[in-house]
Amino acid sequence: MSTTAEPAGRHGDPAVDHEIIDCDVHPYFKDGLQDLAPYMTESWRERLGFGTGADWTKNYAASQYVLPLDTLYINTAGATRADSSVDGKMPGSDPAFMAEQLLDGHGIHRAVLIAGHLFGIGAFPDPTVAATVASAYNEWQQELWLEFDERYRGAIVVPPQHVEAAVKEIDRMGDKPGVVGVFMPLHDIAMGEYHYHPIYEAAQRHGLPIIVHPSGTESVYARAPRMAATPTYYLEWHTALGQIHQSNIMSLIVHGVFERFPELKVCVAEGGFMWAIETMLKLDRDWQALRNEVPWLTRRPSDYLREHVRFTTQPFVEPHKKEHLAAILDMVYAEETLVFSSDYPHWDFDDPRRALNDIPAELRRRICVDNGRKLFGDRLS
Amino acid sequence: MSTTAEPAGRHGDPAVDHEIIDCDVHPYFKDGLQDLAPYMTESWRERLGFGTGADWTKNYAASQYVLPLDTLYINTAGATRADSSVDGKMPGSDPAFMAEQLLDGHGIHRAVLIAGHLFGIGAFPDPTVAATVASAYNEWQQELWLEFDERYRGAIVVPPQHVEAAVKEIDRMGDKPGVVGVFMPLHDIAMGEYHYHPIYEAAQRHGLPIIVHPSGTESVYARAPRMAATPTYYLEWHTALGQIHQSNIMSLIVHGVFERFPELKVCVAEGGFMWAIETMLKLDRDWQALRNEVPWLTRRPSDYLREHVRFTTQPFVEPHKKEHLAAILDMVYAEETLVFSSDYPHWDFDDPRRALNDIPAELRRRICVDNGRKLFGDRLS
Repeated sequence: MSTTAEPAGRHGDPAVDHEIIDCDVHPYFKDGLQDLAPYMTESWRERLGFGTGADWTKNYAASQYVLPLDTLYINTAGATRADSSVDGKMPGSDPAFMAEQLLDGHGIHRAVLIAGHLFGIGAFPDPTVAATVASAYNEWQQELWLEFDERYRGAIVVPPQHVEAAVKEIDRMGDKPGVVGVFMPLHDIAMGEYHYHPIYEAAQRHGLPIIVHPSGTESVYARAPRMAATPTYYLEWHTALGQIHQSNIMSLIVHGVFERFPELKVCVAEGGFMWAIETMLKLDRDWQALRNEVPWLTRRPSDYLREHVRFTTQPFVEPHKKEHLAAILDMVYAEETLVFSSDYPHWDFDDPRRALNDIPAELRRRICVDNGRKLFGDRLS
Repeated sequence: MSTTAEPAGRHGDPAVDHEIIDCDVHPYFKDGLQDLAPYMTESWRERLGFGTGADWTKNYAASQYVLPLDTLYINTAGATRADSSVDGKMPGSDPAFMAEQLLDGHGIHRAVLIAGHLFGIGAFPDPTVAATVASAYNEWQQELWLEFDERYRGAIVVPPQHVEAAVKEIDRMGDKPGVVGVFMPLHDIAMGEYHYHPIYEAAQRHGLPIIVHPSGTESVYARAPRMAATPTYYLEWHTALGQIHQSNIMSLIVHGVFERFPELKVCVAEGGFMWAIETMLKLDRDWQALRNEVPWLTRRPSDYLREHVRFTTQPFVEPHKKEHLAAILDMVYAEETLVFSSDYPHWDFDDPRRALNDIPAELRRRICVDNGRKLFGDRLS
């Protein structure tokens, strides 16, 4: 039931004359992990303490169990748009309201869902907990979101610290209606390592791109990806997120993952893209002298990035001088590499009618439509 | 108002014929950090989000702020004795009930309070948050506990990642009535490093021992002390806690901290003591060959440990063969190094009438009374 309603244009901007594919939208639980209880076995519900004094919704005793997120940074306003909450529930937790506010309200034709509450499951010390939570989420997403409105398309979540379970999950859920990608939360092992190769094999076999996203756990938890220094403030942490993606994308390239899995695509959601410019330039230059270290690379490092890696746009770059935007987009090969995202319902949401107003119509169309359709292929139709 | 009531002997054990000094007891907040609001400035209350949708008692939005504890381990029973809760509030949060259940009930004459909720503040990425929470706690402890019953004696908490503030706090609160020690939560810098020396100078100057305790953050958070491997289970984590203390006590010895601060005492609470036996033996043996590395040491490493380091007893060692207990206690120089603790209200509480029943009366008296009185000196009278 793809909408045909005219976008509301509530900011007074001209209506966009093409469809919009939004590649980074976050569904959230209404009542925390309690929402997943129906999708778990009785023994797992017991193991996780649902319904007991120590369940995940309470802070009881000296031992508190939480979903790994950026729990040590103080952000008193929260990280979501207050106007996306219904009845005081978690923003982004009501499929009907999101369809109205985001999809109808902004003329979005396809929204790729990435599990908002599960960004950090790669930091769980127990791999079976991560696997159980991921599987339960995938069923919850299927039933409550993908079957609710066909404009919603979903990434299934896999546990990065439990590769055997991740592969099984891709085989179990990867071809369900509405599934368009594999969201692999980040862990403290770099993405190019052999550890993950079975996941890449499974994703390639099903024709699903791998999606990564800031975990909200970087430099907070011991098993999370770590920045060069632990930031003191949320402000620092938010700016340094590109470090994680730079190291991981570089790792994928230099380990030859794209030689081994030539159909594999990787989409970096909400990770920025300015860092990718320097990464390409330095890798290409150094590779000329150091290629004997990585003899399996048959092309320039930047060639792999341009063919295999995509970046979502939000938060979009805002150079001090507007005239520099064109150079930035050219350097990052935006016409190939960027796909639009709003990041709804996060606080730094990008409105598709405003965020890309300063770029030429043809490039905007590629970013908003063509590149997303190429990345996800027939699964988006 | 030291109690003169006869211990109840509720387990039917013979009444202990001497007083008991309990060196590790945990007061907790009733309603989480909200309890500290009266002891903070308005600007700090605002900064920390008290009273807003994102305050510390709620899990709102994608950004949740929590006190750093072992938040990733599932321990559905919680870590405290359910029978120490009053009106469903946090166990250990009612001074009157604790006085009745622990002090009267077990014939305890002095209980040294160590901040149960603040074990992990060394993992806070923002040092000013740790300092603010510590100062507010120290005033809360003074007003609600130390002034309530003189059997309560308190350790003031200092922020290990903010040495300047820690020294100021020792000067501000160190000589208040009832204060007997400085609780320094652990951080990801080893205890012997110069970083902490101003704290040791201040503690020595005030005649206060430094108390350390498992942080509940080991290998969970990035800035917390790290074990050799991140444990998957709470069970593993609980057993590996000695690693942290071994590294820290060794660090204190080899850096020459006890040469520089000859009056300084360090008490390892709830950290076990079996690891200290091997530590002494190996350090002593290797030091014979390697003393040119640490020329400031004028005595055997074990001599420093015996003179300066104390261990609380709980959880007490339980060898497979009871007859080995005497050898263990002799090897650790228990007659000098051990001080009794119950660890109330934690789940693995040791009853003073049962835990030490298998050791000779004279040694038990040293552990339960004399060693504690020597460690804390006149401040315990």
